[in-house]
Amino acid sequence: MASYSQKTYAQRGKEHAHPLVKELFAIMERKQSNLSLAADVSTKAELLALADTVGPYICVLKTHIDVVSDFDADLVERLQELAAKHDFLIFEDRKFADIGNTVKLQYGGGIYRIADWAHITNCHVIPGEGIIQGLAEVGKPKGRGLLLLAEMSSAGMLATGAYTDKNVEMAIANDFVIGFIGSRRFTEERDLITMTPGVGLHASGDALGQQYRTPTKIITENGSDIIIVGRGIYGPGKDTAAEAQRYREAGWTAYLNRLGPK
Amino acid sequence: MASYSQKTYAQRGKEHAHPLVKELFAIMERKQSNLSLAADVSTKAELLALADTVGPYICVLKTHIDVVSDFDADLVERLQELAAKHDFLIFEDRKFADIGNTVKLQYGGGIYRIADWAHITNCHVIPGEGIIQGLAEVGKPKGRGLLLLAEMSSAGMLATGAYTDKNVEMAIANDFVIGFIGSRRFTEERDLITMTPGVGLHASGDALGQQYRTPTKIITENGSDIIIVGRGIYGPGKDTAAEAQRYREAGWTAYLNRLGPK
Repeated sequence: MASYSQKTYAQRGKEHAHPLVKELFAIMERKQSNLSLAADVSTKAELLALADTVGPYICVLKTHIDVVSDFDADLVERLQELAAKHDFLIFEDRKFADIGNTVKLQYGGGIYRIADWAHITNCHVIPGEGIIQGLAEVGKPKGRGLLLLAEMSSAGMLATGAYTDKNVEMAIANDFVIGFIGSRRFTEERDLITMTPGVGLHASGDALGQQYRTPTKIITENGSDIIIVGRGIYGPGKDTAAEAQRYREAGWTAYLNRLGPK
Repeated sequence: MASYSQKTYAQRGKEHAHPLVKELFAIMERKQSNLSLAADVSTKAELLALADTVGPYICVLKTHIDVVSDFDADLVERLQELAAKHDFLIFEDRKFADIGNTVKLQYGGGIYRIADWAHITNCHVIPGEGIIQGLAEVGKPKGRGLLLLAEMSSAGMLATGAYTDKNVEMAIANDFVIGFIGSRRFTEERDLITMTPGVGLHASGDALGQQYRTPTKIITENGSDIIIVGRGIYGPGKDTAAEAQRYREAGWTAYLNRLGPK
């Protein structure tokens, strides 16, 4: 059987059992985009403006809702409107990391009510498999999907080896899990997507240990599915829309190169 | 040299370099309490009522501010008033778990502004040492302290062996770290406190993998410093103040038994 990495996103969408993943692959195909924007901005106005500007070029908007200093319920409504307008999914990068009973409350409740609006969220499995069960109790009835943090992009990170393997094992066993945060394809046992942070057109890093890899490395060579780009697209002196287009093209070309000649 | 576990909290407070830890040990001694309450309630009114009821018996109030559905700035002010009234510290159990650049924003900003009011917070070191550096940039100037999640209390948790050792290594090397979440004393290299969740007077568990250990096991035998108790103290049919007193006594007796005859 061919690797999932050798199939088109369209084909994988057709064959996938999870409605949310079907939708995601359909969006990717329609928009010819495997680009996710990491929207790490700290005001509502900035977040909405950024989402509206990059919206046409991305398949997934990745948020850190808890860094927005003037968050309110209206922000969520307007994000949902932008998601509908521009045809993208919302991924709240919450990195849940507590016991099952606690993450249920954090995911479904509080001020943010993440499960009500984020199509996708993620978790560390360090608390054990109960974290997946707790999140699934809240998110599954709403048609949401979960990514496991099988690897990270920061220097000296400890999600490696047996720990990464354990993520893969749990992902295969739990149908609420739709994929991974990581740098590569992890399994052929079922079609679990990989989203990769720390992607840049130029390899470099920041002062707090973030490290960057190129789309060719991540998509063509490693078989990951979606690149997550943040500071490469927006920031001082950057033409945000132009950079988003550039990354979309780079990601899509890397994907076409992976498929090879027709 | 005697183990830190053989010294009184008062003595350790006198010898400690970190002002926050000095204050914590002083509170513990004044109130004869090594009890922390895990306040996992979902409304402002419940949280404030609970903190006021158990306040006299605890050294640390552990919060999950993001499960409070009607959170507002007034809640934080009133928690701080209760902390002053009853002489306890506030520990926001945020379990930060992202790269340094992101946790800086999450800890210092957003709606919650955790660094402004939580004396203590905690993190997983799975992203690498950059997470400690990021949090320290925000919290150190404010006199805050950080606990590393060296172990967890849930079934099948993956914070074990070399991963736990790495936590200990990073804690020793970073003076913003004041201790651990875990089940025992981890090092004698410097006086790092251990706070232990999943403590109950009767061993049992919940349906999502939480497991309970007794104060005698945790404090007397394992050399941990503070017991964290939640559902053992409050909940349907429970006399909250009476249960808090009971756990305070059990924790303190376990501590006195550890010190042995004078």
